[in-house]
Amino acid sequence: MSSPNPLLVVGSVAIDSIRTPFGARERSLGGAALHFSVSASFFSEVGVVAVIGDDFTEEDHQVFRERGIDTDKTFRWAGEYGYDLNTAHTLDTQLNVFADFDPRLSPRARQSPFLFLANIQPGLQRKVREQVDARFVAMDTMNFWIEGAREELLQTIAVVDALLINDAEARELAQEANLIRAARKILTMGPQMVVVKRGEYGAAFFTRESYFATPAFPLESVFDPTGAGDSFAGGFMGYLAQAEKIDDVTLRRAVIYGSVMASFNVEEFSCDRLRRLRPEEIRERFHQFKEFTHFEI
Amino acid sequence: MSSPNPLLVVGSVAIDSIRTPFGARERSLGGAALHFSVSASFFSEVGVVAVIGDDFTEEDHQVFRERGIDTDKTFRWAGEYGYDLNTAHTLDTQLNVFADFDPRLSPRARQSPFLFLANIQPGLQRKVREQVDARFVAMDTMNFWIEGAREELLQTIAVVDALLINDAEARELAQEANLIRAARKILTMGPQMVVVKRGEYGAAFFTRESYFATPAFPLESVFDPTGAGDSFAGGFMGYLAQAEKIDDVTLRRAVIYGSVMASFNVEEFSCDRLRRLRPEEIRERFHQFKEFTHFEI
Repeated sequence: MSSPNPLLVVGSVAIDSIRTPFGARERSLGGAALHFSVSASFFSEVGVVAVIGDDFTEEDHQVFRERGIDTDKTFRWAGEYGYDLNTAHTLDTQLNVFADFDPRLSPRARQSPFLFLANIQPGLQRKVREQVDARFVAMDTMNFWIEGAREELLQTIAVVDALLINDAEARELAQEANLIRAARKILTMGPQMVVVKRGEYGAAFFTRESYFATPAFPLESVFDPTGAGDSFAGGFMGYLAQAEKIDDVTLRRAVIYGSVMASFNVEEFSCDRLRRLRPEEIRERFHQFKEFTHFEI
Repeated sequence: MSSPNPLLVVGSVAIDSIRTPFGARERSLGGAALHFSVSASFFSEVGVVAVIGDDFTEEDHQVFRERGIDTDKTFRWAGEYGYDLNTAHTLDTQLNVFADFDPRLSPRARQSPFLFLANIQPGLQRKVREQVDARFVAMDTMNFWIEGAREELLQTIAVVDALLINDAEARELAQEANLIRAARKILTMGPQMVVVKRGEYGAAFFTRESYFATPAFPLESVFDPTGAGDSFAGGFMGYLAQAEKIDDVTLRRAVIYGSVMASFNVEEFSCDRLRRLRPEEIRERFHQFKEFTHFEI
């Protein structure tokens, strides 16, 4: 048996139709597992468990292959899998797809030490989580599940180490308008840490003992925000998966690497920018974060 | 002749009526010059030029006196001066008051090396600015002037060193949705630097050569946001007024001290929290900013 992927992600891979103020693309490869894995692949080996529609082409596969991402675990589904988080229609589609999706992970996948449960139905996230003997498990979620599957979601949150969530969803999940209190409340639900993604305002990181916050990278244009949160998660988890240990120092760095990857991701459609990103550009932007947040005591 | 106040502020002092989710206060001392000067008084000697209504009491004066703030330059106006930036009515009042307000500064005030033009009619800001032979001049403004007195405002912005402005107003002034581009555009209007106040998201600082950003202090409750921007400006200018020189190091620290003072100000009504603030609490919170924004390379 070959060695396990250090980092495994379960989530969606989809063909998006995107329209931004800067242009439109009819067939844009997207989905949380795509954005996550391409981002994480700069730091660590990555394996993907996803459901894909039969509209998935050889060219789409190539995007994963060129980044060395293992898609052997990916399940094919007969149907188109358009994905747009803003429409209830697509959520119905997603529910239909995942209703029949009962992933049995391979023995190799089950040994992955790092696991990311991207934004899918929380019961399904838990099914995957229970199969993997991981050292560190993180998850994302969204308002749709907070509103429609709260109990299942809370059960899943209780069995992960880290919740990555956006600002508005953190408040909604905790039913608390103040973000700091919301995050503290989420910490009582089970996870050891909460990473709050705040888009153009940066990110905040909470544990019971520590608080860390960073502004976002100052971008003069945000071309396409799709996948920002997932590429953030990819940088965060990818960095941790290759770190020697997980402590406050590495976790803070991971938040910065997440912010770096998200800032590149939004510069172009789909993962176009990340496909031609060079590792030295990541290092350079990481150092820029240090420069623009540093002050002397 | 006595020595000039190191820091002079011109702006409003007013009796607010405040209603927040946490309570209401019928008669709350407020106005930009009040919040600014109380905040700045922790760092530097401060003089205030303001117009006050005849509803201003001995008790109100006491707030300035106990902080050692020089109000000798303050002009009394016959009438009530309720102040609520959210109502057009009060803006009319403000316009009426300032229409007759032609401040002639004393020789002492004219020598103040640091000058802050709080949010008042931009033509009036310029009249004051032209009388003061200051080393460093900063100003604030708001959407009302951006929309209603744009040309006058641009003339005033052209003759200051720093513009302190909130997020939405920076975008509106520059007519540019992206904040980074908006700030760069404002830098072409004259000032050497722009400080963008982002409320609970912190602050960003732009010069032609440098960029600095900080998250806000993580507050579990914001009791009353009134005056947050002005107490920020007070910490920023107060710190600079006592610094040996103005360079990138001191300016970044000034942004943090501004953030510290704003975070205290919003903890209670009016300037209640600042009235009983101790200098060591400021130092402690400054160090907390360092802790929660620090990461290792």
